[in-house]
Amino acid sequence: MGALDEGHFNEELQNGVELDCLDLGFEDQPETVAIEDAVKVLLQGLGEDINREGLKKTPLRVAKALREGTKGYKQKAKDIVQSALFPEVGLDDAVGHAGGAGGLVIVRDLDLFSYCESCLLPFQVKCQIGYVPSGQRVVGLSKLSRVADVFAKRLQDPQRLADEICSALHHGIKPAGVAVILQCSHMQFPNVESLFLDSSRQGWVKALVHSGSGVFENNFADVWDDFLSLLKLRGINVDKTRMKDSKQQCWCPSQYSSSAEVTGPPIPGMVTAVTSILSSLGEDPSREELVRTPSRFVKWLMNFQNANLEMKLNAFACGRMDPLKQNGEVSLHKQIYTVLNVSFWSQCEHHLLPFHGVVHIGYYSAEEITPASKSRLQSMVHFYGFKLQVQERLTRQIAETASSLLGGDVMVVVEANHNCMISRGIEKFGSSTATIAVLGLFSSDPAVRAKFLQNIPTPASGGS
Amino acid sequence: MGALDEGHFNEELQNGVELDCLDLGFEDQPETVAIEDAVKVLLQGLGEDINREGLKKTPLRVAKALREGTKGYKQKAKDIVQSALFPEVGLDDAVGHAGGAGGLVIVRDLDLFSYCESCLLPFQVKCQIGYVPSGQRVVGLSKLSRVADVFAKRLQDPQRLADEICSALHHGIKPAGVAVILQCSHMQFPNVESLFLDSSRQGWVKALVHSGSGVFENNFADVWDDFLSLLKLRGINVDKTRMKDSKQQCWCPSQYSSSAEVTGPPIPGMVTAVTSILSSLGEDPSREELVRTPSRFVKWLMNFQNANLEMKLNAFACGRMDPLKQNGEVSLHKQIYTVLNVSFWSQCEHHLLPFHGVVHIGYYSAEEITPASKSRLQSMVHFYGFKLQVQERLTRQIAETASSLLGGDVMVVVEANHNCMISRGIEKFGSSTATIAVLGLFSSDPAVRAKFLQNIPTPASGGS
Repeated sequence: MGALDEGHFNEELQNGVELDCLDLGFEDQPETVAIEDAVKVLLQGLGEDINREGLKKTPLRVAKALREGTKGYKQKAKDIVQSALFPEVGLDDAVGHAGGAGGLVIVRDLDLFSYCESCLLPFQVKCQIGYVPSGQRVVGLSKLSRVADVFAKRLQDPQRLADEICSALHHGIKPAGVAVILQCSHMQFPNVESLFLDSSRQGWVKALVHSGSGVFENNFADVWDDFLSLLKLRGINVDKTRMKDSKQQCWCPSQYSSSAEVTGPPIPGMVTAVTSILSSLGEDPSREELVRTPSRFVKWLMNFQNANLEMKLNAFACGRMDPLKQNGEVSLHKQIYTVLNVSFWSQCEHHLLPFHGVVHIGYYSAEEITPASKSRLQSMVHFYGFKLQVQERLTRQIAETASSLLGGDVMVVVEANHNCMISRGIEKFGSSTATIAVLGLFSSDPAVRAKFLQNIPTPASGGS
Repeated sequence: MGALDEGHFNEELQNGVELDCLDLGFEDQPETVAIEDAVKVLLQGLGEDINREGLKKTPLRVAKALREGTKGYKQKAKDIVQSALFPEVGLDDAVGHAGGAGGLVIVRDLDLFSYCESCLLPFQVKCQIGYVPSGQRVVGLSKLSRVADVFAKRLQDPQRLADEICSALHHGIKPAGVAVILQCSHMQFPNVESLFLDSSRQGWVKALVHSGSGVFENNFADVWDDFLSLLKLRGINVDKTRMKDSKQQCWCPSQYSSSAEVTGPPIPGMVTAVTSILSSLGEDPSREELVRTPSRFVKWLMNFQNANLEMKLNAFACGRMDPLKQNGEVSLHKQIYTVLNVSFWSQCEHHLLPFHGVVHIGYYSAEEITPASKSRLQSMVHFYGFKLQVQERLTRQIAETASSLLGGDVMVVVEANHNCMISRGIEKFGSSTATIAVLGLFSSDPAVRAKFLQNIPTPASGGS
């Protein structure tokens, strides 16, 4: 174990978790304990050993994360707004509008995250808020952000979230009007079946919603044009025509998933456990929108069942990859070949939150592998992804298997976005992670490593 | 006062602040009270009435913001790391590196903010962290972010911040090595004199620093190339040659400010007050780097002295602007003219934190104003900026004065980045605000307003 011996290491783990708990103040509360018990049921339903080192504290971590991520249930927007209302005279009404009377005030590009009430997965939100002061009263600008956060930190649907932010600000500030635009991104809802049927199930489901009160109540009011023009100054282009029919169907991909029910025998204990989590968070599990949420969440979770894919995917493990050239004569000149941007989905075993991204595989070989072999690599990546995982282990496992399939000179780069980096009070929205595994020549020769890394194209956007 | 009468309004203000305090738990602590008293001295030194409505609760807000922004003094990185060390086997050493042994792990683009120990202004940080696990032990990825935050939330210098993050992670994780790269942005340090001497004093002072331990100790180690290549995959280009001589002079613009001392009679009470704030935050004001910090902060603050500029800038207020055409004949055809991207600096009176940005002025007139008149507009914007302000009032004041200078048909857009939106636990790094004032035709005719807004060019970058 290197510098630390095993005993010391475990003692530190113990102390650390306790200290961490004290920070957040949720420890020992009955709601936290109830969620912990429910998470243990879910882990066992996934076929996991809840005493495995990486999972020991997972129930506590999940409970804390969920309570932190839904703390909006305990907050009152009214209190927040009223702590920061300031008298501010406006222009003389006869000449125009500004200050505390009729001059539009906007805050752009607030990053929020929320939990989808339909499937319990987190979703990301870019929030744009505007209001038109009246009554010679303005609100501290940061309170627009705080109020948006109160409603984001609940189980939500985009349109309801927009409406609740708008309504709370309208009643709190009593302005001439409030406008809210949300650009929401929900991760796809893959499952083992659909991934192999439909490789386009990547990327994000997007929803653009808006809500307006007072002078913004009419979608065609000129003040909407002013608001949208000010967003455009920051490069935020909202298509006004798309805003007209925002009362669309539920956006959550769990609702249009090809197989609506949990495949295989249902595990009622798991569904009951999720229902009890909803209660512990302060929600009413019998609310119409939440009735089927527990079964949808369990359906998602069962994608990550221990060894779920073993039967379906074991083909990839059989022997070396076929080379592209089949002329019987093996070239003596070895070079670096690559398989780039292989997508994966996984579930962080520390927080039961999704992480996903791409895998780049490089191999040093005399011959390139066939397209069929590349497809086997994709299956292999799914095999290791669809588990409770940590990114470091995923990287190693892919590298070890790739090594046996492609020869010993292999390098693997895994790039991911972790939901556990944005929820749970961390809120590092733009961050991403990368891990490396190097075998054989890639381990011993930095120049070979560098050449592979240079071959990976930089994405046009910053990712995600 | 519109829907709320004055009494009700004040009562709400009172209740609201109390509720807000309870949230953070700093209320009534002797350190908070001591900072409040010091802030009152500063406000009085600026010539302000500390009982004015907008300032009444400013001492409490500043105290809470400073304590929140420096809470790292009370946190131990070791506790954070040790709560999330996980056993994770690596590859067999004979074949390569990955997992818990030698496979590089990085987290990219963590947004942090910190306080400059030289001048007490906040600065922003893009943080890149990598480490190479050893001893079959990995750390929870979010802990890299949490540890970085512990040291950012102190009074800092970029190089020390990088070194402290690196050292804490090295001692906590006991890996083969840790690498930290920080891209720091410090706002300029304008003062009334230099702004008129040197119009280039805008934008940001940048610093690029790095720190490495273990296998990263040698700047020329190949593992640095791997790290930089992985950053490049996200479009983060760090120039390795620029990293070589990071032990440069202090970056803080207060240190190379043209006039090193407070101009005018020094106000020793203010300097003493800032010194006492440093003590209350848990710092040692006699630490070498902090000895002159109070006088530098007071120098910055005195830029925003009430009516400081009155004497120097009153020229702008004399009469109408000169038209560009001087042929004695006034054109009858009116059109929209613009003066765009006039920069301003100001200080938020609610939090004593800077906000800055640009002002766009549109006017409907028969003739364009002369370059000399445009320069008078810049002076006018500075006049209203260099005060304790709120953005709504700044917008109105600029509009009212512009109206008297340019005729009654005027529109003003103020776009700003507020430090109070990133510090104080809000941490909305990408957000920005915009406010509008409309007079005369701009108030009554949406088409004229829309035309002006369309004339403002969208910046190539997202701003900041």
